[in-house]
Amino acid sequence: MKQTGSPPSILVDDIGELVTNVPELGEDRLGLIRDAAVLFVDGVVDWVGPRAQAPSGAEMRHDLGGRAALPGFVDSHTHLVFAGDRAVEFAARMSGEEYDAGGIRDTVAATRAATDGQLEATVVRLAGEALRAGTTTLEIKSGYGQTIVDEQRSLAVAARHARETTLLAAHVTPPEFAGRTDDYVRMVCDEMVDACAAQAKWIDVFCERGAFDRDQSAAVLSAGMRSGLVPRVHANQLGPGPGVQLAVEVGAASVDHVSHTTAADVEALAGADTVATLLPGAEFCTRSAYPDARRLLDAGVTVALASDCNPGTSYTTDVGFCIALAVREMRMTPAEAVWSATMGGAVALRRNDIGRLGIGCHADLIALDAPSHLHLAYRPGVALVREVWRDGRLVVR
Amino acid sequence: MKQTGSPPSILVDDIGELVTNVPELGEDRLGLIRDAAVLFVDGVVDWVGPRAQAPSGAEMRHDLGGRAALPGFVDSHTHLVFAGDRAVEFAARMSGEEYDAGGIRDTVAATRAATDGQLEATVVRLAGEALRAGTTTLEIKSGYGQTIVDEQRSLAVAARHARETTLLAAHVTPPEFAGRTDDYVRMVCDEMVDACAAQAKWIDVFCERGAFDRDQSAAVLSAGMRSGLVPRVHANQLGPGPGVQLAVEVGAASVDHVSHTTAADVEALAGADTVATLLPGAEFCTRSAYPDARRLLDAGVTVALASDCNPGTSYTTDVGFCIALAVREMRMTPAEAVWSATMGGAVALRRNDIGRLGIGCHADLIALDAPSHLHLAYRPGVALVREVWRDGRLVVR
Ligand SMILES: [Zn+2]
Ligand SMILES: [Zn+2]
Repeated sequence: MKQTGSPPSILVDDIGELVTNVPELGEDRLGLIRDAAVLFVDGVVDWVGPRAQAPSGAEMRHDLGGRAALPGFVDSHTHLVFAGDRAVEFAARMSGEEYDAGGIRDTVAATRAATDGQLEATVVRLAGEALRAGTTTLEIKSGYGQTIVDEQRSLAVAARHARETTLLAAHVTPPEFAGRTDDYVRMVCDEMVDACAAQAKWIDVFCERGAFDRDQSAAVLSAGMRSGLVPRVHANQLGPGPGVQLAVEVGAASVDHVSHTTAADVEALAGADTVATLLPGAEFCTRSAYPDARRLLDAGVTVALASDCNPGTSYTTDVGFCIALAVREMRMTPAEAVWSATMGGAVALRRNDIGRLGIGCHADLIALDAPSHLHLAYRPGVALVREVWRDGRLVVR
Repeated sequence: MKQTGSPPSILVDDIGELVTNVPELGEDRLGLIRDAAVLFVDGVVDWVGPRAQAPSGAEMRHDLGGRAALPGFVDSHTHLVFAGDRAVEFAARMSGEEYDAGGIRDTVAATRAATDGQLEATVVRLAGEALRAGTTTLEIKSGYGQTIVDEQRSLAVAARHARETTLLAAHVTPPEFAGRTDDYVRMVCDEMVDACAAQAKWIDVFCERGAFDRDQSAAVLSAGMRSGLVPRVHANQLGPGPGVQLAVEVGAASVDHVSHTTAADVEALAGADTVATLLPGAEFCTRSAYPDARRLLDAGVTVALASDCNPGTSYTTDVGFCIALAVREMRMTPAEAVWSATMGGAVALRRNDIGRLGIGCHADLIALDAPSHLHLAYRPGVALVREVWRDGRLVVR
């Protein structure tokens, strides 16, 4: 994926408003600088500040003509490795019709039947779409294979396109284990985790009524941790449950969805390092109630926003759309939503080299067809991302 | 705007799924054809049907590789002639803060202060953005000038970029007429309509509590009709009111917003040729309750979808986003929403040469990065429009 050789040093100049996410560099938590410039050297941020103080000597200069710029989006939750299309199921659900198709089971069957090349083509298509919409870092989960070989090849495909890969073997109970969820969990813990750990960085589980209960989820996470994986958890999407508190107890980097929370859940998150990653695309696509971001933020919880891109319940790659939804539906301010989609995603992935434009961070930047980051919420649905820089190279224009 | 000379005849081939909006040509109301082709000659549709039956002899052939295609979007309600930016007002409103800025009055002041060139630059920018998102026909309203000269120049700018232009002098009462709305209405009726009619096709009024009442609205519409303009009405956006029934009584082509309706309103629309144009971007951007499209459709009302693009209450040009909202929030099916955003807009503009791909219609077509029109709702926020053809020319790729 990465081009070889160092990119030339380049001064990105005449940035009308720059979100750095480094509070010491500018205003507010976003570290906003007006009339800014940023110098990229060897693919990392070498200098950032007011353009009047920009250093000379860059090999190239690129002018943004007063546009706003911000760090590339960090989409810390996607399911891009799959096959099949569930548009008809979606349309039926939205039209209030009964629909007896298999849902996620259809995707598992199609994924198992797909070649590696077919899976890879889908990842390439969706990762490209995400990049054009400003996402410079993607996390990608397995979870539609659910056999050792299909989870392995799912992760192998993911790892060719993302550094952040997650084993989500415990997504649902596969058909051949129907009624024997404990047996599936045992197989995951005893065999699958070890067989897959080399291709993954994270272990994830869907802790939800109808998926995996607290004990089953804890077993999967523990097995992953024994193999060197770091836990993250899908929890409390469809109803209240033990997942949020389990995530905090095991020291998960993030607990995702968090659409239904008790006071104890919020308190647990507020006292922990676990990020709450909200996925409003899922509520949009399933016509469900949105999580209460305001309550989490007011309690001091760190909130990330991500796409949850998957073919069943949130088939969007567009983090800008998630920002607009977060403001409309979850009472986040535009500034909070922008922070959560950049720095929030980085914290949820325990990365300090992305999501912000501090010295030494990846030179990942997006320029908007707009004068301010506010336009990401103010102009919903509009493809505002005009340029994308990744590792100091202009990859979308 | 239009290039000179005839475009070459071209066969757009290998269309996986084509929405024609001509029921006799295919399945359902959308007139869907699988594995279709369409022949453009002299900028109009010369033939459309299954690709196996496509005529030979076109000068060029263009392959869509199985992608879905549909008529270009007809956005029958926009306010693109303005100056200024209200992002800070938007952010404050969304954050629940009190915000004492002037709202629409700010836009009127900025518009009056802007040069023609500045107004035109905004129209060019937003019309280009809309075109890239698949809108091949735009209606553009005046309404931020509110003096004879400023409405005239607003319409002159609009008319350079759109055939469908609308005099909306009666948008709000301008500051110099504060407390004297009747005097403003008299000036509009006695002077402004005549002075502006040459640049406009339509007369519009904002019939709403706080704007213009039934009698004032009727006076404006009558004055416009006497000058040869055809009525359309903004009504029942913020609450119930007389606007819907007034629109039906005067034979308006469309009544727009229609967010609050009584049974009598629905009955009046069902028995009339007046289209109900729904503008879900406005409800999104103002966090208001969405109109009940299902109720209108079930009563037999013709429904259109449009963007309402304006800097205060719906700053989106993206009709695909409006389709996704209509499905998520207004219980339209994806097929109904696609029809309303194409053919519905054409009916709302009383045009039979756009919004569908019948023989002789404008060769306005969009190709999606998707196998089906369902993806416009199934993949919210994603920039799915890959190609745009207008009058037989590939204008966006
Ligand atoms: Zn997920
Ligand atoms: Zn309007």
